[in-house]
Amino acid sequence: MLIVQKFGGSSVADAGRVRNVAGIIAENYSFGHDMVVVLSAQGDTTDELLEKAAELNAAPSRRELDMLLATGEQQSIALMALCLESMGLPAVSLTGWQAGIRTNADHGAARIRRVDTERLRRELDKKRIVLVAGFQGVDRFDDYTTLGRGGSDTTAVALAAALHADRCQIFTDVQGVYTADPRKVPGARKLEEITYDEMLELASMGAQVLMNRSVQMAKRYGVELEVLSSLVRAPGTKVKEVTRTMEEMKITGIAKDENVARLTVAKAADRPGIAFRLLHELARAGVDVDMIIQASGRDDANDISFVVARDQAGRAADALTAQKAAIGFDHVSVDTDIAKISVVGAGMMSSSSIAAEVFEAFHDEHINIQMINTSEIKISCVIDAASADRAVKAIHRRFFETA
Amino acid sequence: MLIVQKFGGSSVADAGRVRNVAGIIAENYSFGHDMVVVLSAQGDTTDELLEKAAELNAAPSRRELDMLLATGEQQSIALMALCLESMGLPAVSLTGWQAGIRTNADHGAARIRRVDTERLRRELDKKRIVLVAGFQGVDRFDDYTTLGRGGSDTTAVALAAALHADRCQIFTDVQGVYTADPRKVPGARKLEEITYDEMLELASMGAQVLMNRSVQMAKRYGVELEVLSSLVRAPGTKVKEVTRTMEEMKITGIAKDENVARLTVAKAADRPGIAFRLLHELARAGVDVDMIIQASGRDDANDISFVVARDQAGRAADALTAQKAAIGFDHVSVDTDIAKISVVGAGMMSSSSIAAEVFEAFHDEHINIQMINTSEIKISCVIDAASADRAVKAIHRRFFETA
Repeated sequence: MLIVQKFGGSSVADAGRVRNVAGIIAENYSFGHDMVVVLSAQGDTTDELLEKAAELNAAPSRRELDMLLATGEQQSIALMALCLESMGLPAVSLTGWQAGIRTNADHGAARIRRVDTERLRRELDKKRIVLVAGFQGVDRFDDYTTLGRGGSDTTAVALAAALHADRCQIFTDVQGVYTADPRKVPGARKLEEITYDEMLELASMGAQVLMNRSVQMAKRYGVELEVLSSLVRAPGTKVKEVTRTMEEMKITGIAKDENVARLTVAKAADRPGIAFRLLHELARAGVDVDMIIQASGRDDANDISFVVARDQAGRAADALTAQKAAIGFDHVSVDTDIAKISVVGAGMMSSSSIAAEVFEAFHDEHINIQMINTSEIKISCVIDAASADRAVKAIHRRFFETA
Repeated sequence: MLIVQKFGGSSVADAGRVRNVAGIIAENYSFGHDMVVVLSAQGDTTDELLEKAAELNAAPSRRELDMLLATGEQQSIALMALCLESMGLPAVSLTGWQAGIRTNADHGAARIRRVDTERLRRELDKKRIVLVAGFQGVDRFDDYTTLGRGGSDTTAVALAAALHADRCQIFTDVQGVYTADPRKVPGARKLEEITYDEMLELASMGAQVLMNRSVQMAKRYGVELEVLSSLVRAPGTKVKEVTRTMEEMKITGIAKDENVARLTVAKAADRPGIAFRLLHELARAGVDVDMIIQASGRDDANDISFVVARDQAGRAADALTAQKAAIGFDHVSVDTDIAKISVVGAGMMSSSSIAAEVFEAFHDEHINIQMINTSEIKISCVIDAASADRAVKAIHRRFFETA
């Protein structure tokens, strides 16, 4: 069996953690499996390197930043190889380049174009444990690139797809995907399985166990993922196309996203296409818009509200204000005192009563829903920030704790 | 004009030093020169990485150690590129691989086989300042290799040779090559020029401004070197085939080497070939022997003494003791209380009186010479350690301070 494992930066933060991970790898290798292991940079290495760069250049070029950052993962794989060797195991570390990971030239957010598996296969044939630097590759100019946030997950999925791996295990500091944030909701349960689509919705809702790019790639290539803990030896959560629980469970998980803000354009002229103009300006400013509500007012003027990421709200407001005269509105206001509660479940596809149940839960708690957005497998509601935790608990109780 | 510059680890140890070096590079670039700059890892980076490796593996494989160590220089070049970019200068960093430095597979002490200059030429044609990671290359398996101690100097010389550079400047923390250690001998003078051979002799004598491999390579390819300080703007010392001063100056420099020990094999059987047997055992143990003295004693037995590096003395003694019965001798003793004083000068080739003058200087100071070794351009004397500084001063006075 060919297994691809990925360990994040906190799992290899120091010598003790490296030894712990080496133990997990060694155990799997001892069962006779072919092992490809993707590692992130140790602990805070990447942040430390970014600080060093910032000391010298406030606006560093992405090409040179990638050159700098790529060293973090290279150190991790070399150290892990040395640790495995000290245990008497055959190991070889490979940088993204050596592992055949070819990307486009979009430094800092490069996309994997292909994986040349020749070298990987050759090392596996020698029964070596292959350690691959995550998060990195090389472009067609042979320049080092990095894949952006969560890039090591993407590396693992890409290698699993290219090598037709039997398993792709993403080790992290949580034990899997939960029905709600277990730090906030004591009754939260670990899910045995979750579909790619559910995972995608949950990830984008702030439950960032896996980055969306890696889940999307896993879905596209049919790579079954398992999310599990490097510290606690227990089965994690499987991420796959179809799950046994799809029919049984109404919903899969509840997520709270506090990185949201509401942007309200007051007294916009009541002209056709005005919402489009506003959206166009936001897109030009690189702001992603999550929800829109257009409320008809008096005097031929509307208030139009957008939900955007909180850290983009200022930029968004500036971009719209700059076009105030051209577009025609009174002013822009920003409300950051909100939260978005998302309820996710593939079961929604076959049951229309779930939305009603969710709304009822809010109603029972006297929580006012400001905006609503739905997809096939998700309902998102914007509410005031202060009620967010209470809302999650109420929904969790309703769907998971009573039966 | 194409200039290759090399800056050592202490010259780029922190952000302030990096900026200082960037200033030197920028100045030369502003004169319209093509610039290739080789950098070492920052300050103690290499030692820190070795410590991390040692935590995990007491006997690390050189392949993985090279993978780890190569990151130090990669960080240096990326940071320098970012610094130059912040000054508005076009820069590009290249790892050993990207710079086309191909080596043999002797990890940890690899030798450069060739430099594929295509990429370097392309970047220079774009008028970019090219920053190359020193100390590293890749072998024919595309594995990372390092060149061993002083490897960055070798990288600089190899690039200067391959690119037919007009200048090759080695920046370091001293201002050049001196007639004697300026910290010990107040009258020591900086040399304007020195021949390759003189430099080789001085370097191996402990005046380690340049590593011998880089000087040998410079001699072979006729690359004229200049050794100068990255902190003090002053002309340094030129290292070349023939110097103006060869005829004028009797000697060029005096060096003291304290990393020596005398190994004495007591009462060795007086048989032909016994010295060879002993040398053979030392070679097998990887011990370099510098001098040999065989003193005839009574009773068909000899004492044989070797001068070896002090840090190899224990290993050497062990290797010989293990063969005591087979070779036939009484015991091995080690004396570390000695120093080697070397007097170097191409002028010796044409003047036979220099050796006599040197011995006279020792005699005037009542210093006993225990062993002597000479070459065409060097006289080395082993004396007791306590007299070493006095000996250097006396010889320096005789050749440089009186006239």
